[in-house]
Amino acid sequence: MLEQAKQKIRNISNFPKQGIEFKDITPLLKDAKAFHDVIAAFVQKFASEQIDYVVAIESRGYLLGAPLAYALGAGLVVVRKPGKLPAAVERVEYALEYGTDALEIHQDAVEKGKRVLIVDDLLATGGTVAAACELVSRLGGKIVSAAFLIELADLHGRQKLADTTKVFSLFTY
Amino acid sequence: MLEQAKQKIRNISNFPKQGIEFKDITPLLKDAKAFHDVIAAFVQKFASEQIDYVVAIESRGYLLGAPLAYALGAGLVVVRKPGKLPAAVERVEYALEYGTDALEIHQDAVEKGKRVLIVDDLLATGGTVAAACELVSRLGGKIVSAAFLIELADLHGRQKLADTTKVFSLFTY
Repeated sequence: MLEQAKQKIRNISNFPKQGIEFKDITPLLKDAKAFHDVIAAFVQKFASEQIDYVVAIESRGYLLGAPLAYALGAGLVVVRKPGKLPAAVERVEYALEYGTDALEIHQDAVEKGKRVLIVDDLLATGGTVAAACELVSRLGGKIVSAAFLIELADLHGRQKLADTTKVFSLFTY
Repeated sequence: MLEQAKQKIRNISNFPKQGIEFKDITPLLKDAKAFHDVIAAFVQKFASEQIDYVVAIESRGYLLGAPLAYALGAGLVVVRKPGKLPAAVERVEYALEYGTDALEIHQDAVEKGKRVLIVDDLLATGGTVAAACELVSRLGGKIVSAAFLIELADLHGRQKLADTTKVFSLFTY
């Protein structure tokens, strides 16, 4: 069942830059059955975990996190690029290959002790999700797991998170 | 039921710039019941319309469009800012108050004659959604309706779309 969904992910060479093999999930998303099977697999994994909030990372993380929050009966919280959230925020900067990037969360997005599932499409080096974890932790949220559609195992993002956060990936390359 | 969800939308003054009263939907999204009620209301409206694809506009449109696609059993298609989609795209430029912006869709995102529901969080002047409609039309998709969480009636976006596209908004201000 999930193998059919995985087949819908296509490789695009040299995007967003030369030498990168990009995993394009849009053919999976547009296939109603594949999309449904993927969300159902996440639901099955986390339905018994009493998730209060799904925290979805902008912007492809929304495509999986939002339906998962809906299906789990959880609230949906967003982590965004700087300047997008209108109320008071926490911000974390993190290193990229060249330079830095940053993520923000509303200070009132998660209450202390709430059970949080962090969702993004892709686990690569883990910098983005580590920043999201830091934001949720600052607010006092309890991170049950971080969940991804795709994990690129060679980039060792899982090890980066290992000390603090459980990792669940549907498809590993 | 929906009145409680509407109460969760908060006004933030002078965001993103002086003089703008921003409708912040994050308190609604994080309330599991309000979020669920809102998606359920869209489902009720469109369940009998045999929607093939929900087309969600980046990025807040994803937060509603993705769960709606899941709940309707439809495929999910994304309309994105330029340069984000990795395969061959159609592009539409559209006028802003100052300058222009553009949106893209994958050329293989929608097949001719497929029934499409376009989803975004906000209908303001209608420029963004008109561009999304143009993209879907170029691919031959049949636009059943455009659906929004919030409509700012004073900005007359509905009239802009009236000749070509049905408009459904859950909350009007």
